[in-house]
Amino acid sequence: MSFEARIQELGLTIPQTPKPAANYVPAVQTGNLIFASGQTPTIEGKLVVQGKLGREVSIEQGQQGARLALLNCLAEVRSVTGSLDVITRVVKLNGYVASAEGFVAQPQVVNGASLLLEEIFGVVGKHARAALGVAELPGGAAVELELIVEVRTRIE
Amino acid sequence: MSFEARIQELGLTIPQTPKPAANYVPAVQTGNLIFASGQTPTIEGKLVVQGKLGREVSIEQGQQGARLALLNCLAEVRSVTGSLDVITRVVKLNGYVASAEGFVAQPQVVNGASLLLEEIFGVVGKHARAALGVAELPGGAAVELELIVEVRTRIE
Amino acid sequence: MSFEARIQELGLTIPQTPKPAANYVPAVQTGNLIFASGQTPTIEGKLVVQGKLGREVSIEQGQQGARLALLNCLAEVRSVTGSLDVITRVVKLNGYVASAEGFVAQPQVVNGASLLLEEIFGVVGKHARAALGVAELPGGAAVELELIVEVRTRIE
Repeated sequence: MSFEARIQELGLTIPQTPKPAANYVPAVQTGNLIFASGQTPTIEGKLVVQGKLGREVSIEQGQQGARLALLNCLAEVRSVTGSLDVITRVVKLNGYVASAEGFVAQPQVVNGASLLLEEIFGVVGKHARAALGVAELPGGAAVELELIVEVRTRIE
Repeated sequence: MSFEARIQELGLTIPQTPKPAANYVPAVQTGNLIFASGQTPTIEGKLVVQGKLGREVSIEQGQQGARLALLNCLAEVRSVTGSLDVITRVVKLNGYVASAEGFVAQPQVVNGASLLLEEIFGVVGKHARAALGVAELPGGAAVELELIVEVRTRIE
Repeated sequence: MSFEARIQELGLTIPQTPKPAANYVPAVQTGNLIFASGQTPTIEGKLVVQGKLGREVSIEQGQQGARLALLNCLAEVRSVTGSLDVITRVVKLNGYVASAEGFVAQPQVVNGASLLLEEIFGVVGKHARAALGVAELPGGAAVELELIVEVRTRIE
């Protein structure tokens, strides 16, 4: 089954590519790698999971935020490739979690995105990862993700 | 027009490669990619934009800091390639902004660097990006940048 | 001398690959690059350098933590390649230091890892680097490292 079909089967929708918050582009391809810009849990440009983990945002809300941010990252990749079916490997996911003093469960939060990658891409979705707790994120987002994927076709 | 000529036309100067603060090198080339080490707003080794955004550093000062840090990143790239004219694409810019509690305008700050990339490199400068708010940066810097660029020539 | 022999000569041991804290893999190879997942100072899964620099963790303890995290990163690379002797260049090290308010000596802390890379890999170990001060790290770790290396053989 193609990844695009799998996304449909899971009842998910890859959103329109989020408009960059500033002077940059959603993603850049170099050789077989695509570097996607950082994404937060926005729906149609509106941030929906705001605040810090360990304070006003629960782990479950953070995980949901990570899922939304991941769908935005995939939209960025698709804006370059036209389809997610050209992905041959999810290489790296970096998850930045806005963390109140003493919150140290960043891996659990970022797992919201990691599990979704596995659901969609199976073995191709098995990625390297880092989870980090940061002071603040753009617009007060609870989570920000960065994604690197490997693709089949060189598009220029 | 070459990028080096464009830099001159803009009245900019790429500084001497900043001496690494510790046991590493300014940049490493692997295949067609150059990974540049993190840079802060230093001029001749002296940090000139210190403190946190949302406290003692204004957005305008942060943007100026991002411009200075970017020039230092470009110096690092040039230390490997000899010229910025071999750059075929600016791939990824990561901007880390030292952020006081509640400061969430990281994208505006990092834009100081993104706009400069566009001014110098035009379409080649259209990059993927992440903007993040961190607790502290080396020496009390207000901004730190990391840059990945794609280059024409393999130099070994 | 091979890097594996050099590690033995230095009296170091590359640990068993640390079990990922969540749904991801230790490292991913794409082309000649290996991206290793973020690592903290764990020994057999137990975090041994906890807390923040500038508060309860000294610079010396932080450096020791960086050394341990680096050995874990190398274990991740070896889990993909079978041997560290295939490394042709250490490309990039990112060091994230859990930093209390006002702690700005992140480069000194991350040097624990940079010096070890030099000891083991010599010129091949000369890497690009970024050092950043973050709010919190998984499990309360004092340091987290990310590593990118270039390798000789494409393994699939």
